[in-house]
Amino acid sequence: MNPNDGFRELDREECLRLLSRVPIGRVVHTRHALPAVQPINFSLDADSAVVMRTSADSELAAAIDGEVIAFEADEVDAAAHSGWSVVVTGRAAMVTDPVEHGRLTRTGPRSWVASPEEVFIRVEPELVTGRQLAGGRSVYGLGLSSS
Amino acid sequence: MNPNDGFRELDREECLRLLSRVPIGRVVHTRHALPAVQPINFSLDADSAVVMRTSADSELAAAIDGEVIAFEADEVDAAAHSGWSVVVTGRAAMVTDPVEHGRLTRTGPRSWVASPEEVFIRVEPELVTGRQLAGGRSVYGLGLSSS
Repeated sequence: MNPNDGFRELDREECLRLLSRVPIGRVVHTRHALPAVQPINFSLDADSAVVMRTSADSELAAAIDGEVIAFEADEVDAAAHSGWSVVVTGRAAMVTDPVEHGRLTRTGPRSWVASPEEVFIRVEPELVTGRQLAGGRSVYGLGLSSS
Repeated sequence: MNPNDGFRELDREECLRLLSRVPIGRVVHTRHALPAVQPINFSLDADSAVVMRTSADSELAAAIDGEVIAFEADEVDAAAHSGWSVVVTGRAAMVTDPVEHGRLTRTGPRSWVASPEEVFIRVEPELVTGRQLAGGRSVYGLGLSSS
């Protein structure tokens, strides 16, 4: 079997570094018993948790609070056949502490759909995995580095 | 509850039209008991099935053949807070018929990592859902159309 299907596995540090470069990721969860994938803007907290912001009464908040979910982000160049993808898997939790909420209001992601009452949702980075796809040539021959 | 969290639900036709515009999507499945999300190039078949191309011995092919999976694609403008996301849910199946394989060699997606033996995987569009996010303003006020 083609090892890793032509992908180079990334270590945790590389994954988090790449993740910090993009503004959009995708929450992977279940909605009405079906797989749901929702793009959303996010930021990384100081402890590398994924932070999202949504209205307090959103369907998303209700669906994922307390659940183990996957959060994915990627950058893919279709023309060059290259890119990377990172998945953070961990438990999502609404931030209920007012001090933490205040902190994230200053440091966290902006809201896309303003609503009267917003909450932050943090996803603990319990498992962080990633892959880098090198287009067309041997992964090792491309001299890919973490920079 | 904010209806659909500020998203406008898209009908099947709109979803497939949007899906046909992008070269990359993501396979959402399970790998080593964990959620796996893998970006991959694809095309839509004449019957709107999602078509992927991979090496015959790939981990991906082994993982999803015969399984119900989700395939997601999106276009998101982080600055404008707008975009769309479509999810096709259906059973994935390796194409084994040589005539079909020949047809897809001509009409299907190109392979990113050339391998001696490649297969096509089709995902039946059993369920096609999508959402369009309008940035910051009422969805209805933006006059969004299908064009």
